[in-house]
Amino acid sequence: MDYQGRQRRLQSQLAPQRLDGLLIIHPPNIRYLCGFTGSAGAIVVTESKSLFFTDGRYKEQAGVEVKGARIVVARKSPLAAAGEWLAENAKKLGVKTLGIEAEHLSVADRSRLAMALSSGLRLRSAPPLIEQARMIKDGDEIDRLRAAVLVGASLFDAVLKAMRPGVKEAEVAAKVEYAARRAGAEGMSFDTIIASGPRSALPHGRASEAAIPANGFVVCDFGVILAGYCSDMTRTVRVGRPGPEARRIYAAVRDAQQAAVETVRAGISAGAVDRSARKILQNRHLGKYFTHSTGHGVGLEIHEAPRLAAGQEDVLQPGMVITIEPGAYIPGVGGVRIEDMVVVTEHGCQVLTPTEKELITI
Amino acid sequence: MDYQGRQRRLQSQLAPQRLDGLLIIHPPNIRYLCGFTGSAGAIVVTESKSLFFTDGRYKEQAGVEVKGARIVVARKSPLAAAGEWLAENAKKLGVKTLGIEAEHLSVADRSRLAMALSSGLRLRSAPPLIEQARMIKDGDEIDRLRAAVLVGASLFDAVLKAMRPGVKEAEVAAKVEYAARRAGAEGMSFDTIIASGPRSALPHGRASEAAIPANGFVVCDFGVILAGYCSDMTRTVRVGRPGPEARRIYAAVRDAQQAAVETVRAGISAGAVDRSARKILQNRHLGKYFTHSTGHGVGLEIHEAPRLAAGQEDVLQPGMVITIEPGAYIPGVGGVRIEDMVVVTEHGCQVLTPTEKELITI
Repeated sequence: MDYQGRQRRLQSQLAPQRLDGLLIIHPPNIRYLCGFTGSAGAIVVTESKSLFFTDGRYKEQAGVEVKGARIVVARKSPLAAAGEWLAENAKKLGVKTLGIEAEHLSVADRSRLAMALSSGLRLRSAPPLIEQARMIKDGDEIDRLRAAVLVGASLFDAVLKAMRPGVKEAEVAAKVEYAARRAGAEGMSFDTIIASGPRSALPHGRASEAAIPANGFVVCDFGVILAGYCSDMTRTVRVGRPGPEARRIYAAVRDAQQAAVETVRAGISAGAVDRSARKILQNRHLGKYFTHSTGHGVGLEIHEAPRLAAGQEDVLQPGMVITIEPGAYIPGVGGVRIEDMVVVTEHGCQVLTPTEKELITI
Repeated sequence: MDYQGRQRRLQSQLAPQRLDGLLIIHPPNIRYLCGFTGSAGAIVVTESKSLFFTDGRYKEQAGVEVKGARIVVARKSPLAAAGEWLAENAKKLGVKTLGIEAEHLSVADRSRLAMALSSGLRLRSAPPLIEQARMIKDGDEIDRLRAAVLVGASLFDAVLKAMRPGVKEAEVAAKVEYAARRAGAEGMSFDTIIASGPRSALPHGRASEAAIPANGFVVCDFGVILAGYCSDMTRTVRVGRPGPEARRIYAAVRDAQQAAVETVRAGISAGAVDRSARKILQNRHLGKYFTHSTGHGVGLEIHEAPRLAAGQEDVLQPGMVITIEPGAYIPGVGGVRIEDMVVVTEHGCQVLTPTEKELITI
């Protein structure tokens, strides 16, 4: 990972933003900038310096992981240590305006920080510079995402093996998560969704104690974390023989998903991808049952920029890694969602998820 | 759960704090006050009203779960919806000063909220009123914590069954987590720690790809979430025959843990419990290897108030549920930690964790 390059690019953005420095506390942003994977850290970046603050518990780990920044191990919280260092050094370094991560810093931490600093230092809410950089994945990141997607997709075998009428949704999830651990995953990237029968109409139906019914859809949405990067996929399987209406709904979602995948390319807006999926579901009289957005960025976090939602004008760029996941949810009846991860390229996209999308009947 | 009572008690605290209302956004605090278990919610409490805001995804769930508050389902984020409602109704209700949860509200959300509100409404950082209430568990909560602790403790069998030289730490964790799901847990309350051999000297050694060695300590720290409440326990087992020094370290930690348990009672300070454990480890020349605090509160969150650390003057009260978990970690060699959950009572405490504490050799 090119941590030095990331820090240099951030440093070059400070002056145009009229910032003399930036204080970073959001763990995924810290990991992106310097490689630290622990929970207690803060970074101060100025035009010429990068300092990483942590506490005694992470001394050894910081020494191994942190790249491109001087490490300061303090006896207080990383934020307090960063504040103290700034109080002592800001004037000397000419730091008068310090950017903060307004979406992540709490009101209380901001107050404590302001108290610790000398009156000559202004705090200002910075734009999400690091989140914007993180939208475009570099080659190392795409390699890791590809590896995570393959481990994630391998779990679908465990889903199919465990799934049969009468088995609890939670039991299927347990087998998926066990397989994930055995495959080397650090953990799941979100709570596993196994939503069967009428529960498949809940877009966020986490695996429950409900038993898989003899007949109905089962929405299976799961992902792993591998080397820090998240995977995310959904397949919907059918238990029992689907009737014509069930086949029709499945085909509509599959076609909407395929249309959205085919719409993706650099230069198009996020909203246009959403529109292409939505249009097909509307044409099939399922528009009102597609109650969420079409996708989102994935990387160090399971939900990142960009959002692929109606009206979003963010323009897709090569190297973005996004999900494409339309669905249709008919209350009291059931639902279908199909989700792949794709990398945006100059002229289209590359689908990372290798798994079959035709309806599987159990 | 007495959600109405909790809301009434909070309402009675507003005037003494010179607040006309309180905006609550921290999910565990929302769950505590009204029972909602989803991720998108906000509550506005005034002296006479409780309103719960959520978005369309959670309409059905809110209807089932939310008690004692009027439910408002909005097409915007719960925070934005609460802001809009306040802008319209604050004057009518005489709400001039609104408390915010300063430890949880981000700087950006505070700005957006301030923009949405009319200029007649002041925002003020409120003290952690709900966190303070949550420190003392009521009967229903203690029942749930007891149930979570028993499910958590049942996993120790899976640990012992999986543990043998050559097996990966992550494989042991996988079996523990599988057993947890099968026992009905909603999830693990934190990343499972299986830290073997020299890694046992890392207080936060999450299960890795390292193989269990033929000889050494293995720190096993794990917990479940059951009906929203967390369990937390640690046992350290020995693989291979322990030498006299290993036996001595284990006995010292066990004695320190026992001394701390025996110190717990209502009226004593959190710091005094920490001191009783620390003193024993100091007497055995292990003081400098006990590098963390003695324990913490547990409930809807895995780490809650109070903190049982050196110098903490918070006074223990009946109904607090806390961990007692001293340890000793010798860099490059190995470590030992033993942890129970206990309920503070008038004259002592009740140990919830039923598991044996003598050294188990594998």
